[in-house]
Amino acid sequence: MARNFAATLGYDIADLQPGMVAEIGRTVSEADILAFAGVSGDTNPVHLDAEFAAQTQFKERIAHGMLSAAFISAVLGTKLPGPGAIYLSQSLRFRAPVHVGDTVVARVTVKEVVPEKRRVVLETLCLVGETVVVEGEATIYIPPRQG
Amino acid sequence: MARNFAATLGYDIADLQPGMVAEIGRTVSEADILAFAGVSGDTNPVHLDAEFAAQTQFKERIAHGMLSAAFISAVLGTKLPGPGAIYLSQSLRFRAPVHVGDTVVARVTVKEVVPEKRRVVLETLCLVGETVVVEGEATIYIPPRQG
Repeated sequence: MARNFAATLGYDIADLQPGMVAEIGRTVSEADILAFAGVSGDTNPVHLDAEFAAQTQFKERIAHGMLSAAFISAVLGTKLPGPGAIYLSQSLRFRAPVHVGDTVVARVTVKEVVPEKRRVVLETLCLVGETVVVEGEATIYIPPRQG
Repeated sequence: MARNFAATLGYDIADLQPGMVAEIGRTVSEADILAFAGVSGDTNPVHLDAEFAAQTQFKERIAHGMLSAAFISAVLGTKLPGPGAIYLSQSLRFRAPVHVGDTVVARVTVKEVVPEKRRVVLETLCLVGETVVVEGEATIYIPPRQG
């Protein structure tokens, strides 16, 4: 039986409008930081070495900024616009540290839809409680449906 | 014996000048894509489902754009400016897909040094062969040395 790929896709461009919001929450564990260090190769001791981190302005280890950015990718790729979406650009301003045990909420909000280019622009925020830890903007391409 | 944390640090702000370059090369495996999907939660089928990907413009699975971005983080955090560096911002334009088996070279080049703010601005590129797959710019804070 042929698979129905349309059934796995996220929003089509015509379904999107400004103000739509989606988010995920992820509690950052030691294992997440180690896993991210492994897959990225970013072994900066501010992330991995508690004694080193104690000497810094943060006083304890901080998560990789790009780990929070990865959670933004997860919202975009699984929820809004969802599966099939193709990343065109992302800006990231790292505003505050994320520590082990913090729950990062990655929230994306549709700002602008450009149907003729099949593009959507989204505001992308990561929050820990009320604190913005990462802010920026994403542009996504929504491929035409096939079959 | 007290640890000499200065010995683990990367470049101090006074050591940096425009034109300095560093890079890493990473061959993207199936395992890298799975690991990144796991740590990020980004299970978009364009990354994980070969049959789905065959229906797309890319014809085969592509790596997460944010995985290439993570390799940029690795160069910044381990080589230039190196350990201790703190990410302030990153822009990313995803220009071309990365496939399983591609070797991504993440290259950073110092563009501007702002000693009074202890900030450095770097051009950040990811290449597969001669093809630019990601381009953007990073701003990094270099903490003062202690002890």
